[in-house]
Amino acid sequence: MGRVAIIGASMTQFGQREGEWIQDLLAEAGIECLEDAGVDADDVEHLYVSNMASGEFEGQTGVPNALAHDLDAMPAYTQRIDQTSSSGGAGIYAAWQSVASGASDMTMLVGGEKMTHKTTGEATDVIASLTHPAEYKHGVTLPSFAGLTARHYLERFDAPRESLGKVAVKNHKNGVDNPHAQFQTEVDLETVLESPIVADPLRLYDFCPITDGSAALMLCPESIAKEYADEYAVITGIDGATDTHVVHEREDPTVMGGVVESGKGAYEMSGYGPDDIDVAELHDMFTILEFLQMEGLGFAEQGEAWKRVEEGHTERDGELPINTSGGLKSKGHPLGASGVAQGVEIYEQLVGEAGPRQVDADVGLCCNVGGFGNCVITTIMEAAQ
Amino acid sequence: MGRVAIIGASMTQFGQREGEWIQDLLAEAGIECLEDAGVDADDVEHLYVSNMASGEFEGQTGVPNALAHDLDAMPAYTQRIDQTSSSGGAGIYAAWQSVASGASDMTMLVGGEKMTHKTTGEATDVIASLTHPAEYKHGVTLPSFAGLTARHYLERFDAPRESLGKVAVKNHKNGVDNPHAQFQTEVDLETVLESPIVADPLRLYDFCPITDGSAALMLCPESIAKEYADEYAVITGIDGATDTHVVHEREDPTVMGGVVESGKGAYEMSGYGPDDIDVAELHDMFTILEFLQMEGLGFAEQGEAWKRVEEGHTERDGELPINTSGGLKSKGHPLGASGVAQGVEIYEQLVGEAGPRQVDADVGLCCNVGGFGNCVITTIMEAAQ
Repeated sequence: MGRVAIIGASMTQFGQREGEWIQDLLAEAGIECLEDAGVDADDVEHLYVSNMASGEFEGQTGVPNALAHDLDAMPAYTQRIDQTSSSGGAGIYAAWQSVASGASDMTMLVGGEKMTHKTTGEATDVIASLTHPAEYKHGVTLPSFAGLTARHYLERFDAPRESLGKVAVKNHKNGVDNPHAQFQTEVDLETVLESPIVADPLRLYDFCPITDGSAALMLCPESIAKEYADEYAVITGIDGATDTHVVHEREDPTVMGGVVESGKGAYEMSGYGPDDIDVAELHDMFTILEFLQMEGLGFAEQGEAWKRVEEGHTERDGELPINTSGGLKSKGHPLGASGVAQGVEIYEQLVGEAGPRQVDADVGLCCNVGGFGNCVITTIMEAAQ
Repeated sequence: MGRVAIIGASMTQFGQREGEWIQDLLAEAGIECLEDAGVDADDVEHLYVSNMASGEFEGQTGVPNALAHDLDAMPAYTQRIDQTSSSGGAGIYAAWQSVASGASDMTMLVGGEKMTHKTTGEATDVIASLTHPAEYKHGVTLPSFAGLTARHYLERFDAPRESLGKVAVKNHKNGVDNPHAQFQTEVDLETVLESPIVADPLRLYDFCPITDGSAALMLCPESIAKEYADEYAVITGIDGATDTHVVHEREDPTVMGGVVESGKGAYEMSGYGPDDIDVAELHDMFTILEFLQMEGLGFAEQGEAWKRVEEGHTERDGELPINTSGGLKSKGHPLGASGVAQGVEIYEQLVGEAGPRQVDADVGLCCNVGGFGNCVITTIMEAAQ
C-alpha cells in the first residue's frame, strides 16, 4: 500500500471571530489550503470536516455540504467527523484512510468550530455533554476532572505546582511567534500562579481559552505528491484508541490509556520510537494534560514529565520542543479545528515553513485528546522531498 | 487491495422507544451484531457510530465513546460519522475505508437516532438545520422541497398522483413482513390519497415517520470472513457525491446529481450496471424520492420511474424489488440508523436471512440520501460463500 502525503495546510486566525460563522471559517481555511497545495477545487475527491457541535453551537448542521458548495467542489464526497475535542485528529485519521484505501486521490480535511458567541457556561456545558451520563448528572465538567487529576499528580509524584505553570509560560512564549494564535502574549509564572482558581489547584492560566477558528490539510498518495510540492510530509504512523468513558473507573488517573494505546499503534506503524520524535504537538487543553501525554507517549517516565519541563527539555531550543505552535493554551482551542491545527504545525515544521517558530525536525508527532482521554488519536509524520 | 466483507448485521425494533435513549439503542444493536457475527468485543478494532444529532436531540455527545464503554470494546478506536440523513451510508463508506486501508481488521458500524421524544415541529427543525442558511432563513423544510419537486415531476412527466401513492402502498406491504419495522400494517391507495396534506401534492402517507432505532454491520477483510461466516456479503462498489447545497440552484429539480454521481462511481468500482442489480433499498423519506433515485441510478429513464411502479416492476415479486424492508416509509427513519439498516436489509437478502421478505438476489444496492440529495452514498454488495 502506498504512503499518504500532506501537500498543503492552512489555518485561519484563531480567536474571537465576531460576525463570522462556522461556514465562513471553514470556507476561509478551505480556500487557503487549496491555494497552499496548488490544488483545484475540482480535483478534491473527498472533503472531510472535523467539527464537534455546529448544531449545538449555531443550530446549523450539514456544514460539510455547505463547504463543498462554498468551495465549488461538488460532486466531491463530504462527511463530518466528530470525536469530541479530538475531532481534528479523528479527521486526519479519516482522511488518511480515504487516501490509503484508494477511495480518494485528493482529500481535503477542514476542521473548525465557532464557540465564542456562547457564554463560558454554555460552551462548557456543550463540551461536558461528551461525558458519560453517569458522571454528567453529577455536574462534572472537563475542568473538574483536570483539577482532581492535577492534585493527585502533584501529591503523588511530589511535583511542584510551579511545574504546571511552566507549561503555560512555555506555550504562551511559543504563541508569541504564531501570527494565528489567539494570544500572542507572554505570561510570567507569577501571573499563572496568581490567576483565579478554576478547579483547585488549577487556575485560569492552566486552561485553554474558548476559541473560533478553522484549519485545513490536503492529503494525497505520496506517488503524486511531487506534482504539487517540492517538500511535503508523509504520515508514517497513525492510530486511535479509547479509554473508559466513565473517567472514575480508570485504575490510575495519571495514565491515559488512549494516549498509551494510540501512541503504541502509531509508533509501531511508523517504525519510530519516542526518541526519534523531533517535535510534538500535545493536547494541552489543561496544563496537566501535557504531563500525562508526555508520559503516555514515552517522552518521560511516569511521574517525571514535570522534571523534563523544569529542565527546559520541552522548550523550543530543548531536546524535544513541545507545542511550538503555542499549543491549545495560547493558540486557542476551537474544538474541531484543534487536532487539524496540530497537524498544520507539524507539517509546517517538517517542510520548513514555521517561520520564527522553526525547529530542526525530520519526524514529528501530534496527539489529540478527546474528552478527558476518552478517545485519543496519535499521528506521526516525517519530512519528505 | 483485498475486498471488504460484511459478516454480521443487526437491527433493533424501530419505532417509539420510550424510556430508552441513544446510548441504549446503540448498545442494543451493537450487542446483537457482535453475536450475529460471532465476534468478541475485544476483537473490534474500529467502532464507528453513524448519528446525525444526539447533541441536538438529547444533549448527549461522545456517544461512540459511550458505546465502546458499554460494549467493553476499549481500546477500540471510535468515531462519529455525520452526513445528515445519509449518516448511515456515510458510515458504511467510512467503515469500508477503515478495513480497505488496513487501519482495522474488524470494524463494527452502529447507526442510531433517538427522535420521538421531540415534537414533530422540533424534529423537523433539527432536520431543516441541514439546509443552506440562505434557504433555511426562508423557513424551508425538507418536506417543502419534496412537495415542490413532486408537483413539478407529476406535471412535467404527466404522471398520475396515484403512482406516488403506490410507492407508499408497496413499501407498507413489504413492512408487514419486517418484524423490526415501525409500521407493520398495509395501507390502501385510498388511505394514502386521502391522508392530510403536508406539502401539496404530498400527503401524510407520502412521508416517512419520526423514529427511534439503531442498526449495525460488521465489516472485515474478505480474507478472514470465512472464519466467522459460511455466507457473507462483499462490498464491491461504494461511492459518495454531493450536489448543490442550495437546492434551488439545481438545473433540473428532478435530477439528483448526488445519486447519479455516487451511482456512477459505485457501478464503475463494482463492474456491475443497473441491470445487474437484483434488489435495492432506496431512500424513500418521501415517495417522490423513490422515483428520483430509480431514475438517477438507471433503473428507469428520466420521467419513467412512475411507469415501472405502476407496472409492479418494483414489487417483491417484480423484476427489481425495491425496499423489501419496507423502506423508510414503513420501517421508519431514525436518521443515523437508516443507511445502516438499508445495508442490513441488502446483507440479509444476499445471505438468505430475509425470512418472509426473501427474494432471489446475488447483487444488491442501497442508496442513502443526505438532505434533499445534498450528499448521497451508493453501495453495491454481492453474495459470497
